Amino acid sequence: MTRVVRWDEIDSALARVDVVAEIERGFVAYSRGECVVPPVGELIFDEPPGEVHIKYGYVRGEEHYVVKVASGFYGNAKLGLPSGQGMMILFRQATGEPVLVLLDEGRLTDERTAAAGAAAARLLAPPEIEAIGIFGTGIQARLQLAYLRDVVACRRVLAWGRNADRLAVYARDARELGFDVEEVSDPDRVARESQLIVTTTAAKAALFGSDTVQRGTHVTAVGSDTPGKQELPSQLLGRADLVVADSLAQCRERGEIASAPELSEDRVVELGHVAAGDHPGRTTNTAVTVADLTGVAVQDLRIAEAVLRGLID
Amino acid sequence: MTRVVRWDEIDSALARVDVVAEIERGFVAYSRGECVVPPVGELIFDEPPGEVHIKYGYVRGEEHYVVKVASGFYGNAKLGLPSGQGMMILFRQATGEPVLVLLDEGRLTDERTAAAGAAAARLLAPPEIEAIGIFGTGIQARLQLAYLRDVVACRRVLAWGRNADRLAVYARDARELGFDVEEVSDPDRVARESQLIVTTTAAKAALFGSDTVQRGTHVTAVGSDTPGKQELPSQLLGRADLVVADSLAQCRERGEIASAPELSEDRVVELGHVAAGDHPGRTTNTAVTVADLTGVAVQDLRIAEAVLRGLID
Repeated sequence: MTRVVRWDEIDSALARVDVVAEIERGFVAYSRGECVVPPVGELIFDEPPGEVHIKYGYVRGEEHYVVKVASGFYGNAKLGLPSGQGMMILFRQATGEPVLVLLDEGRLTDERTAAAGAAAARLLAPPEIEAIGIFGTGIQARLQLAYLRDVVACRRVLAWGRNADRLAVYARDARELGFDVEEVSDPDRVARESQLIVTTTAAKAALFGSDTVQRGTHVTAVGSDTPGKQELPSQLLGRADLVVADSLAQCRERGEIASAPELSEDRVVELGHVAAGDHPGRTTNTAVTVADLTGVAVQDLRIAEAVLRGLID
Repeated sequence: MTRVVRWDEIDSALARVDVVAEIERGFVAYSRGECVVPPVGELIFDEPPGEVHIKYGYVRGEEHYVVKVASGFYGNAKLGLPSGQGMMILFRQATGEPVLVLLDEGRLTDERTAAAGAAAARLLAPPEIEAIGIFGTGIQARLQLAYLRDVVACRRVLAWGRNADRLAVYARDARELGFDVEEVSDPDRVARESQLIVTTTAAKAALFGSDTVQRGTHVTAVGSDTPGKQELPSQLLGRADLVVADSLAQCRERGEIASAPELSEDRVVELGHVAAGDHPGRTTNTAVTVADLTGVAVQDLRIAEAVLRGLID
């Protein structure tokens, strides 16, 4: 019998599992070639504007495959609805039977994206962080901080957003998470004074100048997941000592790497290789590292399975 | 609030709507270019062998988009499970909100496929049918007859199957549907003596000889939905007066048309063009017509919406 659960139950289940560890385990399987992850399915709507991503895949020899539908309709806010919507479904690999329908309203995608950001910070951020720079004021900007709490000691945040009112609301929420937040109107100042930068916007052009990023900084970009989106200056990827992709194939199509065609191959590696210890990741305190996260179906698989384990029967 | 319904409710809802008319309406929209139907997503499993198809799409300007997951795991029978599994989901085009999850165990795919067969027969079969020839003994062979009851007067069936025991069970079930069924071991005899032939197998080579098909016959093939499958002799498509595809683009990849590369373009048309009256379809009693049905997401959309309308609140 297929089990169907809604957000309250999902949220309680998440509290019982280590999501970041599960996501890292997923990246390791992905980068070791154990996953079957076909290209992302996509539906685009014009009126009102919206986009739907359908991600699906499995790890060979495991129990489940996953299908995830996640959409962004940016006019939803006017209707009092979250822009993100969708669901995740686990099916049995051996028989095709649906096991679990997670009516998550798109939130597990937010959670697993934030968990990937925390994994990137755990693996790549410098040991000393005086300030975390956050670009964007949406749900992802909130969740990144919520997950970062468990992997970095720094509690000082420089926050930038396009809209001052939304930035003020964001700053208030981030303070409730235990952070000391400064609202900053100059994006270059955020980039210059932060040693861990996380960009969470739907920008189509660089948010700050490449030269503002100081040596020893780690930058994670999670906003770009579609061709045409870009948050980081392509020169930053060009001067970085190491660029880490969640999926090289996908980042070349949809990520920051897609906007940096001159990036040399020998400075690019997958997050799963770093998580597995197959690549050393950051090797000096002065290195500039960039993580380009576009979202891979194996994250959906891992978080859905984590929820399944966390559910109380 | 997303509504989730299981098969009993779905089955009752189907009885309250005209599924064949809905499917025809879907084909019309598809062939008029009103649909957005991206290529089928696919997952293949080796041990145990199985395949998953993910179909999704929408008609521009309508209310919903659909995502359908349907799988075939042919070892399920040994476990006492149906080989088909899956679900259909309707989402709101304007916001992305999931409206309806149909836990149909793959059965709506069977229903909409059978309804497409009935539509093809309604539009293309000759006026006089002495016998319906059915190839295959599975669920689709049963459903094709169930749906044909409403569109053709003929009640005589010549049935062929690879396995005599399964053929006997099929014949018994078909008699319960009100048909006079003869079990036939020679596939060429079924083809020769039937004016409406429906093939519903997973064959990888032609089931009967091209020359056995008499003038005035209509043949519908529903089994081939993946490259490598083939039920009809390619020569039959070569000599047919008209070949009708549910989706030309898809049939060239996955259908009988994929196995008949020499078929000339001027004798191929889409079912939606015939259903809309934009193409006359069968014009003489002696024409040989072939329908190549591979399954299109717009059928999933139409049957899911039909269920939504048929549900009693």
